[in-house]
Amino acid sequence: MPKISHKGEHMPASPIRKLTPFADAAKKQGKRVYHLNIGQPDIETPQGMLDAIHNSTFKVWAYTASEGTLSYREKLTGYYNKLRYGITPQDIIVTTGGSEAITIAMMTCLNPGDEVIIPEPFYANYNGFACQSDIVVKPILSYIDNGFALPPISEFEKLITEKTKAIIICNPNNPTGYLYSREELEALKELVIKHDLYLFSDEAYREFCYDGREFISPMHLSGIDNNVIVMDTVSKRYSACGARLGCLITKNKEVLKTALKFAQARLSPGMLEQIAGEAAVDTPDSYFEAVNKEYTQRRDILVNSLNAMDGVFCPNPGGAFYVVAQLPIDNADKFCQWMLEEFSHDNRTVMMAPATGFYSTAGSGSNEVRMAYVLNTTDLQAAMVCLEEALKVYPGRVN
Amino acid sequence: MPKISHKGEHMPASPIRKLTPFADAAKKQGKRVYHLNIGQPDIETPQGMLDAIHNSTFKVWAYTASEGTLSYREKLTGYYNKLRYGITPQDIIVTTGGSEAITIAMMTCLNPGDEVIIPEPFYANYNGFACQSDIVVKPILSYIDNGFALPPISEFEKLITEKTKAIIICNPNNPTGYLYSREELEALKELVIKHDLYLFSDEAYREFCYDGREFISPMHLSGIDNNVIVMDTVSKRYSACGARLGCLITKNKEVLKTALKFAQARLSPGMLEQIAGEAAVDTPDSYFEAVNKEYTQRRDILVNSLNAMDGVFCPNPGGAFYVVAQLPIDNADKFCQWMLEEFSHDNRTVMMAPATGFYSTAGSGSNEVRMAYVLNTTDLQAAMVCLEEALKVYPGRVN
Ligand SMILES: Cc1ncc(COP(=O)(O)O)c(C=O)c1O
Ligand SMILES: Cc1ncc(COP(=O)(O)O)c(C=O)c1O
Repeated sequence: MPKISHKGEHMPASPIRKLTPFADAAKKQGKRVYHLNIGQPDIETPQGMLDAIHNSTFKVWAYTASEGTLSYREKLTGYYNKLRYGITPQDIIVTTGGSEAITIAMMTCLNPGDEVIIPEPFYANYNGFACQSDIVVKPILSYIDNGFALPPISEFEKLITEKTKAIIICNPNNPTGYLYSREELEALKELVIKHDLYLFSDEAYREFCYDGREFISPMHLSGIDNNVIVMDTVSKRYSACGARLGCLITKNKEVLKTALKFAQARLSPGMLEQIAGEAAVDTPDSYFEAVNKEYTQRRDILVNSLNAMDGVFCPNPGGAFYVVAQLPIDNADKFCQWMLEEFSHDNRTVMMAPATGFYSTAGSGSNEVRMAYVLNTTDLQAAMVCLEEALKVYPGRVN
Repeated sequence: MPKISHKGEHMPASPIRKLTPFADAAKKQGKRVYHLNIGQPDIETPQGMLDAIHNSTFKVWAYTASEGTLSYREKLTGYYNKLRYGITPQDIIVTTGGSEAITIAMMTCLNPGDEVIIPEPFYANYNGFACQSDIVVKPILSYIDNGFALPPISEFEKLITEKTKAIIICNPNNPTGYLYSREELEALKELVIKHDLYLFSDEAYREFCYDGREFISPMHLSGIDNNVIVMDTVSKRYSACGARLGCLITKNKEVLKTALKFAQARLSPGMLEQIAGEAAVDTPDSYFEAVNKEYTQRRDILVNSLNAMDGVFCPNPGGAFYVVAQLPIDNADKFCQWMLEEFSHDNRTVMMAPATGFYSTAGSGSNEVRMAYVLNTTDLQAAMVCLEEALKVYPGRVN
């Protein structure tokens, strides 16, 4: 039997899915499981996108241009320029989800063995994408005490070597929900200029900023047009994860030209999705207002409930739809599994993601969990009751 | 400005798109251009697939399982088992087009520096996918004289080294249209057993076999379950290229488990496409009968017209919707460009793909072109008249 590749051996399995068998078993036992473990929103997709699908009239479901249709890229340009990104349709390559934007950006910019610095905890699949391209992830710890703010630039400086080619930030952040300030981004700007690095900006959660806070993109900063690559997606913005539609944006012409070669090899992004994507850009502001109001309520329920629990600390994040909370537990992996296997309250339990999966520094996050607030407020409240009861009886509780 | 990667520098641009600027210029001049250069069929997508889209009722456009929905994989299992593949839904990973099935298979099975043997001329994007994973393509010439039959096994043996991990066949073939016989596949089987190699079977054109010829897959051969990986797509089968829906099939459990990790990193294939894909499996036989009749007619027009031209030779292929023809010309790249830039007949011209793009052995294919018969018979006939006239006056005509 032929051997699989080393890459295949080393490829990390998704940490979010590790506990799925236990959740399935719990459900078989008749337990109700509140899923706070994954970033699949329950929010409805805008009607305009669904109408665009239902009203489509094409007869041949054909390839589009590899960089995406001009009409979708024009429409997207309008969307981004309202945000003052100052781009043209030629600065965009439409991708199969944000995931493909990340893999194409990595392949375009980094050699095998090159290093990318990422503040941790970070979106776990960056590890997988890096593994695919033999890129080395250099994590840099951020801390729950200050809400997972950007680590000091001096910490980045310590990690920078000949091999360092890029920094990835995810803003607002998954898993922490942290929204970077203009000052933090300006500090990163100086760093990428000084060391001539790429700055990859994963903006999957751009629309989800709370309490009137402002979203700042590296695209808003001057002097780093050739360094910045935005990786975006419609998945979360329009609750359209299954559309697999994203894009890569940069003003760096050489990167664009090179990224296009990778895009050409895989021929085309989805045709129907681009039609829906055009309609998405016309989603009324009222949709986002309602969604943000809903998410703010949910966040408040989570953060307030968590901080009211004995021994629990949860910073109040400025964006996205995740929180990372510190619990009085010995081991987050054990605890999350125990919640599914052993615990129930009123025949209910909660599924959470152990934060360990979002750190690559061993031992980090072992008393932290990530929760996605993708359930309605009633269910969230019930989930918090469960969690509180669970912490009272968990055998591995500390202090 | 930060540097792009070596991989990005070496990544081949799509050879099919190289002449597009010349085609655009010709059209601007008011010339009609018959497009025989790309494999985008003009055939209508089955109504059942379009109905499935129009009648979809979901409210949240959500991720599916990374390996695809169980219901689509069950439906596909029915399709493949009618073809006697003897598989279960667990042997399938649904992918974003055949393209992603190929990249995942390569990453799963080959290390950087490992070698894959491919009979040439071959589907040009194999080069790009190999480049992405730092895999070395070892081409092995097939010849127009015998219609591009499988090269003798002794030629494969000569190329096999420590580094050889896989053989790719595309059956029926793009670009040659050649349909491999059972004997050829049996010979390959002995070879992959002897050297413990993977056999990647790209079956994008499985449905297109003519003159009552039988399609044989490596899945039909016994004793190589752990070697065979099928890479499939709905693109051509249902003229649904823009759906970006394919799959990887293997009975090798270790490969499946590893491939799933790559699939998990990119989260999900398209949700709506899998709904359409389920409907596609119920496409009535009459659809395929009509399509095959149409393609057979077109092939006959092309092959007969070409062989009737002075100095032209075109084998009669058993499948797919391509032919490779030998022309009395000095240089196929020059000729194809000249057709767009300089030539017209009745204000019409033809766009073809120089076969050089499908060979990786330098100098090969320089008097060959690939034509896709993706136009109706009237247009094809007109295109053949153009080509005949062009060959009469082309300044680089030889003999
Ligand atoms: C931070 C971040 N980036 C990228 C992605 C990829 O999303 P998609 O491929 O659905 O666009 C996700 C999905 O959860 C994410 O959380
Ligand atoms: C031989 C072959 N394999 C794979 C593909 C990839 O097709 P897709 O990604 O659309 O499924 C093509 C497309 O032309 C092809 O000709």
